[in-house]
Amino acid sequence: MSVAVLGSGSWGTAFAMVMADAGQDVTLWARREEVAATINDTRRNADYLPDTELPDNLRATSDVGEALDSAEIVVLAVPSQSLRDNLGDWGGHIPQESAVVSLMKGIELGTSKRMSEVITDAGDIDPARVVVVSGPNLAKEIAARQPAASVVASTSPRMRARVAEACATPYFRPYLGGDVVGTEIAGATKNVIALACGMASGMGMGDNTLASLITRGLAETARLGTGLGADPQTFLGLAGVGDLMATCASPLSRNRTFGYSLGQGKTLEETIAATKQVAEGVKSCKSILELARSVDVDVPIVENVEAVVYEGRSTREVVTALMSRARKLESN
Amino acid sequence: MSVAVLGSGSWGTAFAMVMADAGQDVTLWARREEVAATINDTRRNADYLPDTELPDNLRATSDVGEALDSAEIVVLAVPSQSLRDNLGDWGGHIPQESAVVSLMKGIELGTSKRMSEVITDAGDIDPARVVVVSGPNLAKEIAARQPAASVVASTSPRMRARVAEACATPYFRPYLGGDVVGTEIAGATKNVIALACGMASGMGMGDNTLASLITRGLAETARLGTGLGADPQTFLGLAGVGDLMATCASPLSRNRTFGYSLGQGKTLEETIAATKQVAEGVKSCKSILELARSVDVDVPIVENVEAVVYEGRSTREVVTALMSRARKLESN
Repeated sequence: MSVAVLGSGSWGTAFAMVMADAGQDVTLWARREEVAATINDTRRNADYLPDTELPDNLRATSDVGEALDSAEIVVLAVPSQSLRDNLGDWGGHIPQESAVVSLMKGIELGTSKRMSEVITDAGDIDPARVVVVSGPNLAKEIAARQPAASVVASTSPRMRARVAEACATPYFRPYLGGDVVGTEIAGATKNVIALACGMASGMGMGDNTLASLITRGLAETARLGTGLGADPQTFLGLAGVGDLMATCASPLSRNRTFGYSLGQGKTLEETIAATKQVAEGVKSCKSILELARSVDVDVPIVENVEAVVYEGRSTREVVTALMSRARKLESN
Repeated sequence: MSVAVLGSGSWGTAFAMVMADAGQDVTLWARREEVAATINDTRRNADYLPDTELPDNLRATSDVGEALDSAEIVVLAVPSQSLRDNLGDWGGHIPQESAVVSLMKGIELGTSKRMSEVITDAGDIDPARVVVVSGPNLAKEIAARQPAASVVASTSPRMRARVAEACATPYFRPYLGGDVVGTEIAGATKNVIALACGMASGMGMGDNTLASLITRGLAETARLGTGLGADPQTFLGLAGVGDLMATCASPLSRNRTFGYSLGQGKTLEETIAATKQVAEGVKSCKSILELARSVDVDVPIVENVEAVVYEGRSTREVVTALMSRARKLESN
């Protein structure tokens, strides 16, 4: 099958490799021409996955029209907050019958829209063509072809089956799902929970505290998701607890690392300078909080992370507040 | 309040410290007289928590009658498989009106009974008096007074409130629960899932694999629990996903460490020799599997761990089988 992967960051590149390993004819689009040329010449993405040799049936280009030409599956793997602009540029090139896959895990600032909503909206794509792939998928481990599983969710059984079939390999197991809303909310919110976990770790707290934060984080994610119409079961699955667990526990997670730096007492500016990027959860916490307020759902961890990032509250104050909420029935 | 804690292992000692910190008058029973004497003389439990200074309102004894005399709360923290015999010896001494707290996380071999069932059965205790405490509570971190939370579950609101009040401190937050069955099934099964996670880690697998195993493990635990009448919400909470997460992710977990050794290719005998103990999940996997069969619930992770421990199957074969189950809808 002909596949275009738009975006050559670590996850876009790793997922392109998965689909090539599954036998598809994959074109990986990179914004910069020299990146595409280096990938074609060296079989490596030096910036993001320098240790992985990419298969021969994966080729790179910086020409988006060439990448999209006759693609049956179009995979979008660009920064969440750039998606709308990118789709404005690309919209006309996306083939009419293609499945459009989102690998992105964010909520748009300003509109509080999920990535699939931005795709249908800015790309003028029928919602039934949108497929979301999400799960415990640290890109570096996938690139090392370690066993992993993921949810492939779409409202269309035909579209999700097409994508699942196209990415199934002995080391990557897709599970079919129908809950696009829940899968996306879980993917976006987990970045904010990972920031909170990183903050707690940076303050020297151990695995009990981390596990409590993750549990309370899962509960607020499920509350928010079901408030928006998601299936509560999704949060018990790979895209829910699975991804949350991998992201919050792994030292490979960028959001956790970013939170860790804040927890050690560094400022936001120092942390951005040290990590050379703004973690996705930093951008999404504000839009997720707005989304939660729009459906009147209480999300204390998201709220406290937002207070650190946008209102200068100290991590110590915030983590202490989260761990000392009043004793009550757990389900409340 | 007068509290007796029977069992001076790491969790019994740490929980006795929590209750003493909460202001209770705590007597800790140790089987061996010299252990009790050393705790009273040095304010330390040298075998299990050598780094923790125990508070003055905690005293030790090896006389169980003395420990139980006028106790309003009796905490049981002995090895799961010894509980029935111990209760046979102690039964007559447990004060009639006391709350009886179980800290144990196992299923009895032979009978497949939960610990609360063994208590009511062998100790002739009214089920309403039994309270189960379970959550992400690695004993060493609690002993270091790091923030943690736990579920205090009983069918009796009065009994769970008594115990929760008696153990609440600024660093230990009890949450009230009513689902004794779910809390116990979660606590026992997580040891077996942690063994499987340890095996995968020992084979060199990363956080994606671990997160997938934990997610599938949570699903089978919830299936088993609800099959036995538990509330599915329990598995989303501190005693469910919280404890599972802490146990499977932490290098402090004995079950994970035991599985890790097996995953590295050591035999069961070599592992027992190296860790100087048989991890709880090794004992419980057989009784949990029998329990699951009795209610016709599929528990593939428990089944595969049992096959390694009791039938000599290789960890490689088992972990590969678990990670390559057929592609399907996630909820099935």
